[in-house]
Amino acid sequence: MTYYLYYWPGIQGRGEFVRLTLEAGGADYVDVGREQGAAAVADAMDACRPPFAPPFLQADKQLIGQTANILHFLGPRLKLSPTSEQGRHWALQLELTIADLVVEAHDVHHPISPELFYEEQQDEARRTAQVFVRERLPKFLGYFERVLNGNGGGALWMIGRSLSHVDLSLFQVLTGLEYAFPSAMQGLAERHPDLMALRDRVAGLDRIAAYLDAPRRIPFNEDGIFRHYPELDFGNH
Amino acid sequence: MTYYLYYWPGIQGRGEFVRLTLEAGGADYVDVGREQGAAAVADAMDACRPPFAPPFLQADKQLIGQTANILHFLGPRLKLSPTSEQGRHWALQLELTIADLVVEAHDVHHPISPELFYEEQQDEARRTAQVFVRERLPKFLGYFERVLNGNGGGALWMIGRSLSHVDLSLFQVLTGLEYAFPSAMQGLAERHPDLMALRDRVAGLDRIAAYLDAPRRIPFNEDGIFRHYPELDFGNH
Repeated sequence: MTYYLYYWPGIQGRGEFVRLTLEAGGADYVDVGREQGAAAVADAMDACRPPFAPPFLQADKQLIGQTANILHFLGPRLKLSPTSEQGRHWALQLELTIADLVVEAHDVHHPISPELFYEEQQDEARRTAQVFVRERLPKFLGYFERVLNGNGGGALWMIGRSLSHVDLSLFQVLTGLEYAFPSAMQGLAERHPDLMALRDRVAGLDRIAAYLDAPRRIPFNEDGIFRHYPELDFGNH
Repeated sequence: MTYYLYYWPGIQGRGEFVRLTLEAGGADYVDVGREQGAAAVADAMDACRPPFAPPFLQADKQLIGQTANILHFLGPRLKLSPTSEQGRHWALQLELTIADLVVEAHDVHHPISPELFYEEQQDEARRTAQVFVRERLPKFLGYFERVLNGNGGGALWMIGRSLSHVDLSLFQVLTGLEYAFPSAMQGLAERHPDLMALRDRVAGLDRIAAYLDAPRRIPFNEDGIFRHYPELDFGNH
């Protein structure tokens, strides 16, 4: 079974959450945007049940859009989600909360609109960044650390005893936040040691370590979700 | 089976998407926040698998958070979602796209941060509102109209031949947008007749019509997601 991932080339973006799960699951997949260009992604959106935006995944003749929905679909197929219905709802719930954090992290540099350039909303972005770093980021990280600790003493993963797409997505968010807000994250990392240990654990998985070293892992850059603009990196002390 | 909905009293908010599905499904439910106050909602968040924020639903001993996840859970139980796995993923995909629109509609009046009052970000909100009305709203409404039309000629509902939580959530978004942006929506309604007919069809369902007339339907107000601030209601012509 070959999966086809459709996402814009050149950025990690939301496509990266899908890539990490495909990589960790050892799936055979084609990264259509990177192999055939952005036009191939745009063309594929003209479907009978069209996605609103990339990323979307093709599995046989089924097209699945929305990042959390894609991971909810892939989880059982790649053995990267709980097996019970209750567990799968919990995984989807956490994945959607990660998605909320991703939106807020993105909107730091695009507070007025995704339709305008950063340079058109730079002053507003400075205001947003301060509140994000001071209020929102600690709230989200505190929540995820609490969930991890609530999963039994010394829990290795977010849910039960197995790696899931939730761990992979948390790795991606934490790594992205450290890229975008190194000063803020320095202070926060010390206060969330178990979450940072989880990030390291994911980075050390054989398949993920190999992927992170490979040329197909696109570096973070200032066209993606997580952007390092020094003027927005307010320290959190 | 009695469901317990936990949401802040006083606003429709995200809780309303859950209420509409519970009402349309004829479910027996307790609206805990309205019956017991906000403290009861806050207390219930201190759970073993805690939600990040309301709304969340209790079904037996299971606690389910994140609006789209709750609807994905309720869908099959209340016969308000497709029955095939493929259909359920499509419903979740559309529900998550509605959720994206809800975030953007909310952020029009809170572009800088949800942690600040509207009055602290009113100037920025005016900028956001203009782009939202001109660019984002037509993009989302055009998408949903296209999906509806793609569901076969003269389709009554968004998916297949049956009412689903997607139709109910679209009704809520469209109604909220008309409350918040009456000028903008006047022009857009004319260009999306099938979507507006869908909204009317939902409003006319026996259970929904009864609910909308009942005192338990909280009116829209300026503490919720959809707020009517005349200074943000730019026309779309």
